[in-house]
Amino acid sequence: MSSRKTIDPSGFSCPLPLSDHPLVLMAHGGGGRLMNQLIEKMLGPALSSPLLDQRHDGAVFEAGNARLALTTDSYVVRPLFFPGGDIGKLAVNGTVNDLAMCGARPLYLSLGLILEEGLPMDTLWRVVQSIRDTAAAAGVQIVTGDTKVVDRGKGDGIYINTSGVGVVANSVSVLPANVRPGDALVLSGDLGRHGVAIMNAREELGLESDIETDSQPLAGLVRQLLDAEVEIRCLRDLTRGGLASALVEIAESTGLHLEIDESRIAVREDVRGACEILGLDPIYIANEGRFVAFVSAASARTAVDVLTAGQQEGGAAVIGTVSEAGPPGVTLKSRIGVDRIVDMLSGEQLPRIC
Amino acid sequence: MSSRKTIDPSGFSCPLPLSDHPLVLMAHGGGGRLMNQLIEKMLGPALSSPLLDQRHDGAVFEAGNARLALTTDSYVVRPLFFPGGDIGKLAVNGTVNDLAMCGARPLYLSLGLILEEGLPMDTLWRVVQSIRDTAAAAGVQIVTGDTKVVDRGKGDGIYINTSGVGVVANSVSVLPANVRPGDALVLSGDLGRHGVAIMNAREELGLESDIETDSQPLAGLVRQLLDAEVEIRCLRDLTRGGLASALVEIAESTGLHLEIDESRIAVREDVRGACEILGLDPIYIANEGRFVAFVSAASARTAVDVLTAGQQEGGAAVIGTVSEAGPPGVTLKSRIGVDRIVDMLSGEQLPRIC
Repeated sequence: MSSRKTIDPSGFSCPLPLSDHPLVLMAHGGGGRLMNQLIEKMLGPALSSPLLDQRHDGAVFEAGNARLALTTDSYVVRPLFFPGGDIGKLAVNGTVNDLAMCGARPLYLSLGLILEEGLPMDTLWRVVQSIRDTAAAAGVQIVTGDTKVVDRGKGDGIYINTSGVGVVANSVSVLPANVRPGDALVLSGDLGRHGVAIMNAREELGLESDIETDSQPLAGLVRQLLDAEVEIRCLRDLTRGGLASALVEIAESTGLHLEIDESRIAVREDVRGACEILGLDPIYIANEGRFVAFVSAASARTAVDVLTAGQQEGGAAVIGTVSEAGPPGVTLKSRIGVDRIVDMLSGEQLPRIC
Repeated sequence: MSSRKTIDPSGFSCPLPLSDHPLVLMAHGGGGRLMNQLIEKMLGPALSSPLLDQRHDGAVFEAGNARLALTTDSYVVRPLFFPGGDIGKLAVNGTVNDLAMCGARPLYLSLGLILEEGLPMDTLWRVVQSIRDTAAAAGVQIVTGDTKVVDRGKGDGIYINTSGVGVVANSVSVLPANVRPGDALVLSGDLGRHGVAIMNAREELGLESDIETDSQPLAGLVRQLLDAEVEIRCLRDLTRGGLASALVEIAESTGLHLEIDESRIAVREDVRGACEILGLDPIYIANEGRFVAFVSAASARTAVDVLTAGQQEGGAAVIGTVSEAGPPGVTLKSRIGVDRIVDMLSGEQLPRIC
């Protein structure tokens, strides 16, 4: 075929050894080690730009006289509807939250639908209503869109991409590179609900529970932190790969050592029970309404107070610190007092969670 | 399921009669009448906002002190590689072009990949290289991204979403609502190459030809038109549904009557031959590097000169006018001198062309 490139004309060869990684696996989208390798050894180096190289939840840049954030996420969650939410709710809140994690005030979203031929139109209508209601609740507008249809069997009902634009105040700088030794790690709430709700909705599991997704827009909470003059270094929402993967990613990109205390991490009893039955560790489970804030030690208490006051449900806590020394990575002090190293998952725990 | 909504709590019912449209069909993504209905009777009314209601290729808004454009497109073209291009090239140029059609200078793109389990990693690498090279040629940066993987059989290799942000000069206003009677319709070049190249790449057709996609970034040409002080009212690139659908859409949204002259529309001989064999009309075929400019009558000649000077290949021409009277719609004077009404296709001519 005329477009076939056997040799990259620029002489740039892929840092990911393709012979060792011949095929895309589910885990390449799972938020763990393989996805990290795909990003660090193929997508990142090939598409390198100063903004992409920040490895943030979005890009913050100047355009015209404005300081803006741009972020994107595709949503392929299965099933489309689950306790407490659906793919439309995730698609709006997820992108609103990525903007919030950049310290931005979310304004405008784009909506890209990839529909499978034969999808019941009523299903699409339910998802569209959810998108509308979630956008209204989050205070954002859908301003542009695109719809594609793929052949029956070449999709899975609905895939959604939302991209978002927000405005970042000049005083705000929220970036992995800002994290420094002595900072506190503040977790915004309890872990694990979204992942357990999705697993439960997949009929093969059949757990009896009323656990619902924790999907919610986080921009309001971030704004409250900023208004309270909490010194925020970095924010990260805890989606694919959960708390563990988010922290390992930040530890590796900053070269710092993070220490967390398992006993400070809130997990609801029913979620913990479900995790034990399933053999899962809550720190790896995806959330859709939780984030970790790296803040100055002096701000930690205020941050917890703001997060506690700003939500109906509890669980906000200082869960650890950025260590003064130690190799890049994450150590967890377990409930029984034993230290262990936290790594990303190498395989795929929960495919298509978002 | 707890999230099941049988009644829309807002009392808003879908203007698209779902009993008449029970399932999503390929044509709902085809750029013709069914897609138009889906947008006008479901997505548009449900998600209505002043920007979305403009029915433009993107949204232009103020953010901070800047005037910006945001646009999004998903790419599901089949096959992934075809003469003159691939899905990565389309994904970059397509979104650059939607920004250009808003009169924006394209700056930053997001990249959302939906990969199918089992995709050869080498295929992904070829697409990533194409994305990199096309972005460099178009002068845009990929600044943020997302990767999802779906199960084998639930995708088709690679789907790509690109969203883009550009800056719009204060002096520029390029919108369907600006079109007025007496304006000239200027076509930027010859029609039909992209669609014929794709069809040819689908092995079932087996035409002998070296027709390549016309995919190219159009922002440079738009800039040259603006620099030459062409009075641009509206711009529209001629992708899914081709010239015909683009013009009908603008005629319907403005309530104006457009008259075009088939003899002024350039179609290469080999493209015309392929169309005749396939029973297709070139005005309905998708292009990825062509647009129509609605310009003041006084600017029409300059526009054609700029477009001719700015491209290696010809075909730029005044192909019609916005009529002073007549019902909303499009009339084509055929090569044999007969007038006929141009409508959108009701079915699906060429699925998954982009």
